[in-house]
Amino acid sequence: MTQVETGTTVFGDRLVDLVDRRRSQLVLGLDPVVELLPVELHGDAGDVPEARADAVARFCRGLIDAAAPVCVAVKPQLAFFETLGHHGMRAFEDACAYAREAGLLVIADAKRGDIGSTARAYAAAYVEPRDGGPPVADAITINPYLGRESVEPFLGAAKRYGSGLFVLAKTSNDGSADVQDLRLRDGEVVWQNVARLAREWGEGHVGEHGLSSVGLVIGATYPRAVGEARRLCPQQVFLLPGIGAQGAGPADVARAFTSGPASALVAVSRSIDYAFRVRGGDWRAAARLEATRLRDEIWAVSGW
Amino acid sequence: MTQVETGTTVFGDRLVDLVDRRRSQLVLGLDPVVELLPVELHGDAGDVPEARADAVARFCRGLIDAAAPVCVAVKPQLAFFETLGHHGMRAFEDACAYAREAGLLVIADAKRGDIGSTARAYAAAYVEPRDGGPPVADAITINPYLGRESVEPFLGAAKRYGSGLFVLAKTSNDGSADVQDLRLRDGEVVWQNVARLAREWGEGHVGEHGLSSVGLVIGATYPRAVGEARRLCPQQVFLLPGIGAQGAGPADVARAFTSGPASALVAVSRSIDYAFRVRGGDWRAAARLEATRLRDEIWAVSGW
Repeated sequence: MTQVETGTTVFGDRLVDLVDRRRSQLVLGLDPVVELLPVELHGDAGDVPEARADAVARFCRGLIDAAAPVCVAVKPQLAFFETLGHHGMRAFEDACAYAREAGLLVIADAKRGDIGSTARAYAAAYVEPRDGGPPVADAITINPYLGRESVEPFLGAAKRYGSGLFVLAKTSNDGSADVQDLRLRDGEVVWQNVARLAREWGEGHVGEHGLSSVGLVIGATYPRAVGEARRLCPQQVFLLPGIGAQGAGPADVARAFTSGPASALVAVSRSIDYAFRVRGGDWRAAARLEATRLRDEIWAVSGW
Repeated sequence: MTQVETGTTVFGDRLVDLVDRRRSQLVLGLDPVVELLPVELHGDAGDVPEARADAVARFCRGLIDAAAPVCVAVKPQLAFFETLGHHGMRAFEDACAYAREAGLLVIADAKRGDIGSTARAYAAAYVEPRDGGPPVADAITINPYLGRESVEPFLGAAKRYGSGLFVLAKTSNDGSADVQDLRLRDGEVVWQNVARLAREWGEGHVGEHGLSSVGLVIGATYPRAVGEARRLCPQQVFLLPGIGAQGAGPADVARAFTSGPASALVAVSRSIDYAFRVRGGDWRAAARLEATRLRDEIWAVSGW
């Protein structure tokens, strides 16, 4: 039951294998901002859109070269590519392909969510084979506000192509309480209800190792929510942002790993991408050092 | 107070002026699907990404030529462009620029929503001047799940550039109840609370004519929600999808217009874009006829 139609493996099992081989739960977040890049990359880009996108593509390739050996996946944040227009989307596609060649899974941080017919187009854009090639990404983040209908096409892709999806439950930002912490009549808050919905959506998508293709995004900045989500959703893979620039540390996510070493992924973006701005020296070496340090710390707290 | 820094006018006032001059509240939705295009456009595109994107760009230009005289805005749905990769995003940018030249407002149907630093990148991508030119779009749809923080950068753009934003409240799809209709402890449902939050976020962004730059998306498929939202949010412009392919008719949105003729916009996509598949004949003429019919019906029910 864990083989999908094409003969590839369900997402949860792919992850178990990869985490086991690499002994890492670290996800390299790609948040490229031209003005923050090393001068050697953006020095002569000026305001030329193609040159700015080229600088971003080179930055992403350099980070992937540096950090790939200690990571299991990359998580490009689409906003930072979209802000460079269609040139930026070319850089996004380049980064995804380059990461795949490096043996990393690609998690498109898109936070898309739309009505059924539109959600089908988003699934085709990101987690289905396109233009005669493989899917751009192995997994995608999804906003649940439009309900089950908005995840259906991604469930179809999970079955057919072994892709994964991560439903936003409790996000890492200060303002996440505005909607996610609204108290429901039955005593739960909105994000807890969303977590239970994601668990339902993920039934029938659980791999041999007990992990579902439908995961959750839970902010590491809310350690109590991490534990609570794990209690509600033992079979969901958690994608945990918020460590580093957003203020959380590896110890804050320990409880996420009680369902196994691959049951949680820790996404770190700015503090790896821009490690050179703190550590000095070569930007790739700085990224590698920071990623290695985080990989080790996270592996230790995961208790495996 | 209604002049923004650059000397342009706040979004609500721009809309009042445009609706008054055009006597229309119709928004041309652009949902281009290559396989559904007229054969003359996609006939020889095959699987070549550039050719598919070119066909989409020509389709959008033709629809804009045909429908612009009876519309106030276009609403390109980003998913249908993203599914063609960076070539598709080039077609998106082309359609937006072409619509602006035709005197239409551009509402990017992006449904983005992210943490503050990422939301800033989305604002820069869609509603702020880019690459030395004007913003790609005049307004954008926003998913509220991440809270006020995710709309802040768009509020900044509203002040500086006169742009608008439409916060998803009650969406048009069948599955919208899953999260949006969850009952809160205080008796409201989630979308009603979101509508009140959007009203708060829009304070300080109200134009001379009493309309806020922060609007709401309310599905025309839920007429009771339309009336209820109007009661909660008298100063919000409503963007109303759901008429046509999704099953609602102009009469379902009458109550949205009680705050004035420009207080609601009706977005119709598939039944205009693909009118030729029902009516036959030239695809542009069919789109024009269907748009004209809808414009007239909507203006009549608006009661102005």
